[in-house]
Amino acid sequence: MSTLHQPRQRLIRICEGLPVDSTPIWFMRQAGRYLEEYRRLRQRYSMLELCQTPELAAEVTLQPIKRFDLDAAIIFADILLPLQALGVPFYFAKGEGPVLEKPIQTPQDVERLHTTDAEERLTFVYDAIRLVRQSLDEKIALIGFAGAPFTVASYMIEGGHSRHFAKTKLFMHEQPEAWNSLMTKLSTVTLRYLQRQVEAGAQVVQLFDSWVGTLGRYDYRTFVMPHSAAIFAGLRDAGVPSIHFGTGTSTFLDLMKEAGGAVIGVDWRVDLDEVWKRLGDTTILQGNLDPVTMLGSRQTVSQAVRRVLEQVKGRPHIFNLGHGILPETPPENVETAIQQVRSWPEIGKQI
Amino acid sequence: MSTLHQPRQRLIRICEGLPVDSTPIWFMRQAGRYLEEYRRLRQRYSMLELCQTPELAAEVTLQPIKRFDLDAAIIFADILLPLQALGVPFYFAKGEGPVLEKPIQTPQDVERLHTTDAEERLTFVYDAIRLVRQSLDEKIALIGFAGAPFTVASYMIEGGHSRHFAKTKLFMHEQPEAWNSLMTKLSTVTLRYLQRQVEAGAQVVQLFDSWVGTLGRYDYRTFVMPHSAAIFAGLRDAGVPSIHFGTGTSTFLDLMKEAGGAVIGVDWRVDLDEVWKRLGDTTILQGNLDPVTMLGSRQTVSQAVRRVLEQVKGRPHIFNLGHGILPETPPENVETAIQQVRSWPEIGKQI
Repeated sequence: MSTLHQPRQRLIRICEGLPVDSTPIWFMRQAGRYLEEYRRLRQRYSMLELCQTPELAAEVTLQPIKRFDLDAAIIFADILLPLQALGVPFYFAKGEGPVLEKPIQTPQDVERLHTTDAEERLTFVYDAIRLVRQSLDEKIALIGFAGAPFTVASYMIEGGHSRHFAKTKLFMHEQPEAWNSLMTKLSTVTLRYLQRQVEAGAQVVQLFDSWVGTLGRYDYRTFVMPHSAAIFAGLRDAGVPSIHFGTGTSTFLDLMKEAGGAVIGVDWRVDLDEVWKRLGDTTILQGNLDPVTMLGSRQTVSQAVRRVLEQVKGRPHIFNLGHGILPETPPENVETAIQQVRSWPEIGKQI
Repeated sequence: MSTLHQPRQRLIRICEGLPVDSTPIWFMRQAGRYLEEYRRLRQRYSMLELCQTPELAAEVTLQPIKRFDLDAAIIFADILLPLQALGVPFYFAKGEGPVLEKPIQTPQDVERLHTTDAEERLTFVYDAIRLVRQSLDEKIALIGFAGAPFTVASYMIEGGHSRHFAKTKLFMHEQPEAWNSLMTKLSTVTLRYLQRQVEAGAQVVQLFDSWVGTLGRYDYRTFVMPHSAAIFAGLRDAGVPSIHFGTGTSTFLDLMKEAGGAVIGVDWRVDLDEVWKRLGDTTILQGNLDPVTMLGSRQTVSQAVRRVLEQVKGRPHIFNLGHGILPETPPENVETAIQQVRSWPEIGKQI
């Protein structure tokens, strides 16, 4: 391949094994409540209005890009948007997160899901992606994303956030055929949704399995892995790298890697050094700063960032948090973290 | 040692490396809301009244023992009881758990803690232990317990339950001296509290570090481990085995073992088989049934119990849940789990 055809975005270069001049960096939920320009928009529009109006979603996506020297924009959306397309309405209750009025309780509820052409009912996401690509500097990668089948299924069954995921786990164990059907429907629609995001201009896609860490290996392998694997298998032809992210996943990171994803995203509970030992030094890891450290002083941020960077030792790494940025995060701390990553002397080894 | 002096309790025998005729079994929170006889008492008395009235605490402690063929009773108490002794009042808000009106925010707040003779202000716990021992079958071990310094400190700093433990982590990182002082005070009082429980008749003690899994290895090693280790070191002269329990601890189980405890308690996120590989086959493990499976059908319980037992393969094991029994658990399911453990054919290998 001629160098003229090599991608310019650091995030994509590292996924393709190409040299980079600095560690790629972005932050999960980098477009969000910690930015006053976002909060101002939220005074006028609901979360769903922002997501469903391409011009607004594009504006929000670009807000952190205008402020910070980031290597990626991630399209502003919510992992539950596909629920409405599936015929499962939800809303965001103030301070409580998503609420589903009719959670999935029976095999009949699963049968009723409108999967046919569900991805066609999400055109506002693709339109937002097209708008962002029009104004995004070509050095910055645009990331599309979706919730992973387990995490989305857990909201569908619990009806909202959950602590113990009791209904989800019991559904899984006691109605394995209906669970399998639900997960198959979700993985099918999720794959098509991500493919459409790529067609619209997403250059990387991330699958968020945010709550899968509530499971042990047996449950992950039996009830989740095949469905996430189907998505990554289907994405192979899409021609873009994919990121497989979860929290609390330390006991089955090998299975997550086997399920797929060019990049494995990990939370702060693991040491990157240890994960590379287990998964191999060529595994591209994303993470894993504890989002809580970003609420601290400049020195706290700086020390925490350093502890992440010190573990890298020339291995392929995308700097990020271990989970989404917290709404209380001072934007100056994002600046501090980025500056530290940019000035880290070790990067030479990665080139 | 003559066999006459050998302990008769399976739980203690396994801790001392002696043969057992059946896997010892008990359940964290086995005295609690899933039992109607407990709920009846709670209609008349508050949680704190039950804890602070030795006759009532003893009665509640014995409730599950009267129903089930268990190998241990655990004294009915709460990990936050020492807070009042330290001069930090709290109450249980309906459905919200503990609420502290004056959380720890500054180094001065730490200085003000009344550690001198704090354990003397918890005599109701020792009295309850004495009462239970008077009527407990000598084949059944009586477990005393305390919250571990990190978990108790997190309540003191957050003011109650927490999702991100943000205040706790920032206190730890930004006020390391005050943190160290707080943890030293807590470990000192906790050690004395456990020693007094042993003097009163507790035959085993468990340290609950229920929320420490929110930390990564660096934080655990730097800010927590020395303080938990001080407690286990101090307990060496107490002459009873100790259990070191936490959830979400898979990334630093080796450090927890190093900190101390004859038994390591683990949650359902890890495979026992994998933990024995990492910590060595002679490590005594306690756990690790997912409490959620206990809400399911008889078949769900039975399959989940079997998956735990199948991993044991003759290694030293105390059957338990991976965390406390959930209030919605049908008592029949406890019966089912116990029967299955009692009839498990592999136990012969452990003798």
